[in-house]
Amino acid sequence: MLGSLVYVGGLDLQAALDTVSIDGERLGDELARIGYDGSAPLGLHRPHAYVELHIEQGPVLDEEGITIGAVENLQGISWQEVTITGQSNHAGTTPMRLRRDAGYCAAAIGVFLRQLASELGGNQVCTMGKVDLHPNLINVIAARARLSVDLRNTEELLLQEAERRLASFLEELARAESVTIDTRRLARFEPVQFDDDVARMIESHAARLGCSHRRMTSGAGHDAQMLARICPASMVFVPSVKGISHNPAEHTAPADLAAGANVLLHTLMELACQ
Amino acid sequence: MLGSLVYVGGLDLQAALDTVSIDGERLGDELARIGYDGSAPLGLHRPHAYVELHIEQGPVLDEEGITIGAVENLQGISWQEVTITGQSNHAGTTPMRLRRDAGYCAAAIGVFLRQLASELGGNQVCTMGKVDLHPNLINVIAARARLSVDLRNTEELLLQEAERRLASFLEELARAESVTIDTRRLARFEPVQFDDDVARMIESHAARLGCSHRRMTSGAGHDAQMLARICPASMVFVPSVKGISHNPAEHTAPADLAAGANVLLHTLMELACQ
Repeated sequence: MLGSLVYVGGLDLQAALDTVSIDGERLGDELARIGYDGSAPLGLHRPHAYVELHIEQGPVLDEEGITIGAVENLQGISWQEVTITGQSNHAGTTPMRLRRDAGYCAAAIGVFLRQLASELGGNQVCTMGKVDLHPNLINVIAARARLSVDLRNTEELLLQEAERRLASFLEELARAESVTIDTRRLARFEPVQFDDDVARMIESHAARLGCSHRRMTSGAGHDAQMLARICPASMVFVPSVKGISHNPAEHTAPADLAAGANVLLHTLMELACQ
Repeated sequence: MLGSLVYVGGLDLQAALDTVSIDGERLGDELARIGYDGSAPLGLHRPHAYVELHIEQGPVLDEEGITIGAVENLQGISWQEVTITGQSNHAGTTPMRLRRDAGYCAAAIGVFLRQLASELGGNQVCTMGKVDLHPNLINVIAARARLSVDLRNTEELLLQEAERRLASFLEELARAESVTIDTRRLARFEPVQFDDDVARMIESHAARLGCSHRRMTSGAGHDAQMLARICPASMVFVPSVKGISHNPAEHTAPADLAAGANVLLHTLMELACQ
């Protein structure tokens, strides 16, 4: 969503072009290499409205047997990288009380995140998807752990509460385990409220085309959340079988894809005639 | 300690030569490459006794200000690789209750190991030094986690108890989290009792040379534990500053190194005159 974020003025163009990916390549250089460093000025076209068709990437429509989701809001996202610095030492000779074990601390954070989601309830989700230990050897207490924390909630205040509870847990953990814990914000987007008129339009076209439908929340981030800053925006969701996404088994039935495309077409036609 | 294990008949020579390292090289090929594939038959010399000088790699001597450790026993070691198979999915759209999160399970194991060490007490140590998640991405629930478990105790029955408690925890965790958990034994050595006469000899030479000394346990594995199967064996330990080992900061003062070498020399001379 970097392109849409820059387009709506949410991030400086040069900062975006200078972004370096995890494999070490600079975005601006890669765009030039593949011939995608276009010359059109930013914000050249200001959309009248923006509607995005997407698979749900979650289980709600599939579980409920509903074809069309009219997306009314989108979860806020808080991404942090947490780095724990302890002391590498021998796994056999170092008594438990003298350890400064970055690997244990990473594990404690993973378990805390599960508790945090359960305590906050609702649609709060917490994920530790990435963990790298150093030196990552069976008989060496880890000196360093670097891990990712992904927190999401549709309510900004609850998302802030999740961030606060995590921060105080990390502080307490660093003290108890005699390690240093640093955090770095990787991304932070507040929850987004989509345009109610557009969402209603999606529902009415779904109904007219004979598709079952419901209002829903997007748990994933999408370009529509960026465009919502400068024009009325919403999204059309179609079912993801078993809610599976970010996985090669991701699948949506052809009939659902066609239904989504038709709802998108009719919604855009109505918006184009306004 | 592979060489000493093969020498005493604890592992078949061919099986040892066929060992493949984590970087994919076969041990036999690498020995040939560096000119170390010797032709002497196994067990050619049966030692009269075996005494090994080593840094403690732990904090006991340094904390107590003692120069020489006469090692009387050595902790048993249980190494396992644990593989958790869950399901990769979107970290934003997948409700907590529907997750099959291998990353969370790895974290739960790391926290359990700490509790296990605390429950068993004594010199039980438990370490999760190596963790690899797949796909290891910030916004994807991990489909797979592979981690190492290192358990050590001087008492074989307690080590077995630690293994049993871990196994039942893993069973429970797999059921609760709808994941599959497989374990593979990487190494297993029972605790070793060293020869009391040799340990006493080490103590008496340390005393005669004016070195402070104590009996102690080795938390690390050493060649002496293999040789103890075929001859009287023990070890001379010298202090590791702050107990740091498996770390570039590992250090032993020159005077302690010299004291250890002298105790080794005199012990070997006495054994040679028997």
